[in-house]
Amino acid sequence: MPPEPTPRTAVRRLPEKQVDDLATLHAILDEALHASVGIEVDGQPYVLPMACARDGDHLLLHGSTGSRLMRALAGGAAVCVSVTHLDGLVYARSAFESSMQYRSATVLGVATQVPPADKVRALEVLTEHLLPGRWAELRAPLAKEVAATMVLRVPLAEWSVKVSDGFSEDPPADLEQPVWAGVVPLRLVAGTPVDAPDLGPDRPVPAHVRDRDRDR
Amino acid sequence: MPPEPTPRTAVRRLPEKQVDDLATLHAILDEALHASVGIEVDGQPYVLPMACARDGDHLLLHGSTGSRLMRALAGGAAVCVSVTHLDGLVYARSAFESSMQYRSATVLGVATQVPPADKVRALEVLTEHLLPGRWAELRAPLAKEVAATMVLRVPLAEWSVKVSDGFSEDPPADLEQPVWAGVVPLRLVAGTPVDAPDLGPDRPVPAHVRDRDRDR
Repeated sequence: MPPEPTPRTAVRRLPEKQVDDLATLHAILDEALHASVGIEVDGQPYVLPMACARDGDHLLLHGSTGSRLMRALAGGAAVCVSVTHLDGLVYARSAFESSMQYRSATVLGVATQVPPADKVRALEVLTEHLLPGRWAELRAPLAKEVAATMVLRVPLAEWSVKVSDGFSEDPPADLEQPVWAGVVPLRLVAGTPVDAPDLGPDRPVPAHVRDRDRDR
Repeated sequence: MPPEPTPRTAVRRLPEKQVDDLATLHAILDEALHASVGIEVDGQPYVLPMACARDGDHLLLHGSTGSRLMRALAGGAAVCVSVTHLDGLVYARSAFESSMQYRSATVLGVATQVPPADKVRALEVLTEHLLPGRWAELRAPLAKEVAATMVLRVPLAEWSVKVSDGFSEDPPADLEQPVWAGVVPLRLVAGTPVDAPDLGPDRPVPAHVRDRDRDR
């Protein structure tokens, strides 16, 4: 159920690009390996890249319990989590109309710590999102590892999504310009896996790594 | 000349990943098509994806003169500009040591408007950064287009860079784990150009578009 835009999430610029269905929000978050997390400390905004994963109607973030910004987030600071996928470069007939294709999601709110009883499951969600298929073949987390990790969740309650997926909308007079116009698609792709230098014998690349993102 | 880290830019977490040479900062910014721009309004941080381009010792941003956040930035609000390149997924022998390869730059400061006399040149820098080779073949910007565009610059004075480019550093006991370890490289690639549906005849794809990013 998409929320009504609040004064803080209503898109003012290019409102025709605002999308309000939850499926699109989820798709954008589910494709993201990292988010840009905004927080204000002493009058200065900070933006940090952090790994992320959606867990139902929350977004999970994690970091060290020693991190100053993780502690500020856990302490109830207002947060903005932003995810952007660049999908293409839009070549218009003028610099002014040139733009990019993108899908972006913004979530506002307050993060809370995932309670201890749910932390290992949340770490599994994060790991499986970032490294699908990996969790089952790894040893269980050690108690000290879990204790050293803070896992936060931000409710997907106040959010906005913008999608720009078309070509340029040049004014009629510009269509005569003697230039090509179109889109150059952009895509984040996974390359060939590289063995760790200290990899022991008989440790083949697993199928879930070898075939990663092949279908994107 | 790299600045001394200030209390605001000294990297607290994983300080061994902090890099302080200007060439690395420039390389990270010069590869970025967009930045995540953080600003605080009424106690709420906001993070917006914006196209960006480096112009010497400044970072350029642009947007509509009607944008509330552009006006807040031009009005002297503290800003944080964050650029992140994800370079790889690091498969460690435990979930705890699993991570990502990345290069990230954070610039703190205050933006100022590019003065009118320098605006077209700044728009050329932005356009040529995002669409190399395009400016020369486009018509000149119209006065009304320039007037409708706000161009901001943020000095590269207070910044930090983090680079994570290695493999996992698993504790010795974990090296016996019967799992593959290594890195899956990630790369943003340009695909085959797609003609605009309203493209006229005799408008071939120019070489600067066709060969875009082929050498990355």
